[in-house]
Amino acid sequence: MSELSRIGVALDSGLLAKFDALIAKRGYANRSEAFRDLIRAELVQETLESPQSKMVGTITLVYDHHVRLLQERLTDLQHKYHHSILSTLHIHLDHDNCLEVVVVAGRLAELQELANTLISTKGVKHGRANWTTSGANL
Amino acid sequence: MSELSRIGVALDSGLLAKFDALIAKRGYANRSEAFRDLIRAELVQETLESPQSKMVGTITLVYDHHVRLLQERLTDLQHKYHHSILSTLHIHLDHDNCLEVVVVAGRLAELQELANTLISTKGVKHGRANWTTSGANL
Amino acid sequence: MSELSRIGVALDSGLLAKFDALIAKRGYANRSEAFRDLIRAELVQETLESPQSKMVGTITLVYDHHVRLLQERLTDLQHKYHHSILSTLHIHLDHDNCLEVVVVAGRLAELQELANTLISTKGVKHGRANWTTSGANL
Amino acid sequence: MSELSRIGVALDSGLLAKFDALIAKRGYANRSEAFRDLIRAELVQETLESPQSKMVGTITLVYDHHVRLLQERLTDLQHKYHHSILSTLHIHLDHDNCLEVVVVAGRLAELQELANTLISTKGVKHGRANWTTSGANL
Repeated sequence: MSELSRIGVALDSGLLAKFDALIAKRGYANRSEAFRDLIRAELVQETLESPQSKMVGTITLVYDHHVRLLQERLTDLQHKYHHSILSTLHIHLDHDNCLEVVVVAGRLAELQELANTLISTKGVKHGRANWTTSGANL
Repeated sequence: MSELSRIGVALDSGLLAKFDALIAKRGYANRSEAFRDLIRAELVQETLESPQSKMVGTITLVYDHHVRLLQERLTDLQHKYHHSILSTLHIHLDHDNCLEVVVVAGRLAELQELANTLISTKGVKHGRANWTTSGANL
Repeated sequence: MSELSRIGVALDSGLLAKFDALIAKRGYANRSEAFRDLIRAELVQETLESPQSKMVGTITLVYDHHVRLLQERLTDLQHKYHHSILSTLHIHLDHDNCLEVVVVAGRLAELQELANTLISTKGVKHGRANWTTSGANL
Repeated sequence: MSELSRIGVALDSGLLAKFDALIAKRGYANRSEAFRDLIRAELVQETLESPQSKMVGTITLVYDHHVRLLQERLTDLQHKYHHSILSTLHIHLDHDNCLEVVVVAGRLAELQELANTLISTKGVKHGRANWTTSGANL
């Protein structure tokens, strides 16, 4: 971790009051932490624009475990991409439905391909990929 | 416009360097302007979470003007919602395709209904709604 | 325009009922039009993933026209990128605030650069870019 | 699970060819499965527009575990909202950084509040919430 800098920001008092209200509502302890989060969110967003970026992410899959051979197929696919998968968490949502959260790391283009492959599997009802970074550059 | 405030923000030097690089790439003249934009973008985002918010927006429609009666139908629909429409800009993209930009203002729920109605019209190839505010609260 | 195809889609009756309710709410005349819109929206989304894609778009800017030299600066910038700009629509939102809708066409990477430059200009309160295509491939 | 319906969809041959190419690229076995996924994604999107909807989701947090008392604070917060949290998965990304994936279920407004609270905690570098549903209505 590097040393701390302190910078000044000039802004209209009305805008500052609205910012203070927003960050209080969101639970920030102080303005600096809120500003840092805004900056870091932009940096992650910027990283997402390049397919060669190294990202960390979660792929969430909702499916009915009664669909024949679905779990086998999802597990097979995950093994095919095992070098990109850090861990998989499985939750039994109700009698029929499962949530699987696949935590992945690697180049965005490959992770996106893995996400597409899992989400397009017959029997998966809804899938989403959600990207962040390892935090090493934040 | 109210008076100017000046606040201090503490952040890690490494994060500050990355922020400076990002805002230089995006063309900002200084950090304060970049911070103000981050704040205002969050405020607009917050407004979007309530259907009763008063918004300004654009609805973009791409369509083939050869589709029989399509322009008449779009114009009829726009007149039905004329109290929500500030202006419509029409661009001839190529021999077949038009871009229509409908500028709207009003409560988000009504504008969303108008957008859905225009976008779902048979012959409209692609439609998108894009929201901002009047700026009076920014 | 090419000839019409007719394909069959198999789906669970419960899911079909929910789809019918959703498209009725959004104003679709029939299922085929709703399916075509879903397909076209995915195709536009796919195009957005490549910076070399040719896109059409709108950049919306909200600003206070009292800010000294702001309009001159925005006009200067737009002339610098005039080959990418099809048209600009200006709306007087209230006593202070203007909405400018800049309609652009070209390669995504260049349009994104233009959008960043306009949005980062001091005095612009809120800016958003919104992308579609010319419709020639939809 | 209810019985199967079969519906016909009419669309331009050119659009169909582009759709077939897109779904092949994404790994779909057939058009019906791709259509069902498009429908279900819209239904989840629709649910997200109401704060009273019951959702399932993941909140991802990236943080440096060296930040004093951060893990204690995150654990305390999670216990305060324990009725909304199904499970938490923790991954050691590198020497400094952790990824925590909090799986949540409940009303969207409450889950959003929990997400805001966790993400705004000092020391959390990047946080994102990602929503889906239990699948019971899909």
